[in-house]
Amino acid sequence: MAAEAFTYVEGGVLAPRGFLGAAVSAGIKRSGKRDLALIVAEERCPAAAVFTRNAMAAAPVIVSRENVSDGHARAVVVNAGNANACTGEQGIADAREMAAAVAAALGCDAADVLVASTGVIGVPLPMDLVTGGIAEAAEGLDVVTGDAIAEAIMTTDTFPKQLAVRLEVDGRTYTVGGVAKGSGMIRPDMATMLAFLTTDAPLGAAACDVALRASVARTFNRVTVDSDTSTNDMCALMASGAAGGAPIPPGDPRFEPLAAAIEHVCGELAKMIARDGEGATKLVTVTVTGARDEADAERAAFAIAESPLVKTAIFGGDANWGRVAMAIGKSGATLDPARVRIVFAGVLTCENGTAVPFSEEEAARALAEPEVEIVADLGVGTASATVWTCDLTYEYVRINGEYRS
Amino acid sequence: MAAEAFTYVEGGVLAPRGFLGAAVSAGIKRSGKRDLALIVAEERCPAAAVFTRNAMAAAPVIVSRENVSDGHARAVVVNAGNANACTGEQGIADAREMAAAVAAALGCDAADVLVASTGVIGVPLPMDLVTGGIAEAAEGLDVVTGDAIAEAIMTTDTFPKQLAVRLEVDGRTYTVGGVAKGSGMIRPDMATMLAFLTTDAPLGAAACDVALRASVARTFNRVTVDSDTSTNDMCALMASGAAGGAPIPPGDPRFEPLAAAIEHVCGELAKMIARDGEGATKLVTVTVTGARDEADAERAAFAIAESPLVKTAIFGGDANWGRVAMAIGKSGATLDPARVRIVFAGVLTCENGTAVPFSEEEAARALAEPEVEIVADLGVGTASATVWTCDLTYEYVRINGEYRS
Repeated sequence: MAAEAFTYVEGGVLAPRGFLGAAVSAGIKRSGKRDLALIVAEERCPAAAVFTRNAMAAAPVIVSRENVSDGHARAVVVNAGNANACTGEQGIADAREMAAAVAAALGCDAADVLVASTGVIGVPLPMDLVTGGIAEAAEGLDVVTGDAIAEAIMTTDTFPKQLAVRLEVDGRTYTVGGVAKGSGMIRPDMATMLAFLTTDAPLGAAACDVALRASVARTFNRVTVDSDTSTNDMCALMASGAAGGAPIPPGDPRFEPLAAAIEHVCGELAKMIARDGEGATKLVTVTVTGARDEADAERAAFAIAESPLVKTAIFGGDANWGRVAMAIGKSGATLDPARVRIVFAGVLTCENGTAVPFSEEEAARALAEPEVEIVADLGVGTASATVWTCDLTYEYVRINGEYRS
Repeated sequence: MAAEAFTYVEGGVLAPRGFLGAAVSAGIKRSGKRDLALIVAEERCPAAAVFTRNAMAAAPVIVSRENVSDGHARAVVVNAGNANACTGEQGIADAREMAAAVAAALGCDAADVLVASTGVIGVPLPMDLVTGGIAEAAEGLDVVTGDAIAEAIMTTDTFPKQLAVRLEVDGRTYTVGGVAKGSGMIRPDMATMLAFLTTDAPLGAAACDVALRASVARTFNRVTVDSDTSTNDMCALMASGAAGGAPIPPGDPRFEPLAAAIEHVCGELAKMIARDGEGATKLVTVTVTGARDEADAERAAFAIAESPLVKTAIFGGDANWGRVAMAIGKSGATLDPARVRIVFAGVLTCENGTAVPFSEEEAARALAEPEVEIVADLGVGTASATVWTCDLTYEYVRINGEYRS
């Protein structure tokens, strides 16, 4: 994920050529803010998507999984303010009606429309508002509303999350853009809350799928705000091919730099989600090294990143590294208690499984920064993994004690 | 765990015949409160114990595991205010020295002394204070200080946790007593924070082990405050046999009522721990029914009980049952999304996986009570499990943001 290879450009998810979009206020959010967005490829194009593994998957997840199964899509429609989850047969019918409304406006097949919803669980969608919003959005498609789309898909997010990078591959210029939302109920499993990526590179369906799955595994799937996996997680990539060039299959020398660009966009969006975790004051990067294998490293890193004791200690500016020792110990990862090493906010606190004297002042200064890093070495191998999270604060409790009311 | 079969009696862990105890202020807690306790059998007796599975197990856990391996013990020594965890070779030496100091005072073998510590991780024990406390405690042994022992082992606990029940078995009167501590870092795995049980029944080592393991699996191991498994968890049972009668092996008709009494004491202590979870305002009982097997039921119940979104909703008095649907869905338990049923605080909110209309007023009234029950049916079988937890509050964040400082 070396950023040096890319140029950052404006435009977010609409930065790549071959895509249009729109965002409107359909009236689903009580606040009256924008709450419905369309991302539309000029023509039907290769696409891939990954979805939540939550067994209570929401209606839009079920419908989109079906619609992307042929490796192609024309458009994504997203609403915020209502998750269309636990809504039974009516929910499925509503998700299909959203796809059909988009298809009618664009003159395409409803099976080429991906549907995503985010917001409260268990409330039927206000379909009159939704279809009205879709009609309005389809009227106003343009290439400059990436910002508005990023805003329209927010729920408890405090800032919009988008990114686009440009890269040269074999004499051609390609762009990868992305937009995401997510702040609470964040422990994605094979996808994140909601993220949509676009590229104008000539990737086929298989190339989209390979690049997306590999990227998601090391980015969105390594973010946790509160260990809770949403019913609505979805991450999709559409490749318009509008930048031209011969098709780029996996294994082609031109595939790797594009896959790296896709992973970079996913990684930056994932970190934005962690930084904007509900109530968060800090972005916390947890790296576990010295593990037997990568799965063990990931397991131990998640145990640290999901420990409410570790997260509250970071909020309190307290270098309570004993809680990191507890977390790796409970994680089930293989470790050598006599070789464990913990660096908390840049300060060595534990070596060979034993406390070492450290400067509390130095630790306190490091913990006052907006980004905190924790590194734990398990002392048994060479594998490593990094997970992003945030601190656990009063504000998290307030937001989630009051969310539905 | 039918309580009707038992008579509640005073005296806590010292209520059974054949045990003495003492609790002193050794100066380990900065507050000057009692922080060291002894529980002593008049004679070496059968004993069993279960310990944390945390791979970073603390020194006292390592030493006690060794010392109980022959199925017998004479005494337990416990200090609060310092966990003697992540303290390396010195920590092991200190734990052994604690056992030796007790053995010297009682005139017994150091291998018959169980050692337990609780408090901050990664700080060497102040051994001069500890051995001074042991000497003072050994001087003052009596049979009436159960209350003081319960107080001495507290850390962030807001109330002492103890219980004793009396029962008649085959014409004899037996007593089972217990004491526990625990409030944070509570997600016991094969043991709880710290719990000590005594009985005057003539149970042998095997009977102690069978009764204790079965009880712990369904009581302490089904409590979670914050999903964090301590490095120091330990639960031990000593059986003095002082009430007389022929030895009671597992399988003996007299064994079952005694095992039930032991499970009852464990269960009540476990619920006290959940009710006293750090910052808790409510005891939350989560029951999952309709599961394929008990392991699945337990998995789904823990997913609900450990979800910060569920726990903050309960704190906020919000019947946000969609979060329960999310939790069972992410748990990995087999379920039928079209048959899921959720009763939140006594109010039916979801049937056949779909929202049903309910009275928010009725739910709000139920959520204002100090005890809240959540029942989720997975719709695929007949197995069930109950887990106890508490809500997640501002106070939890405050306590754990400031603990070490």
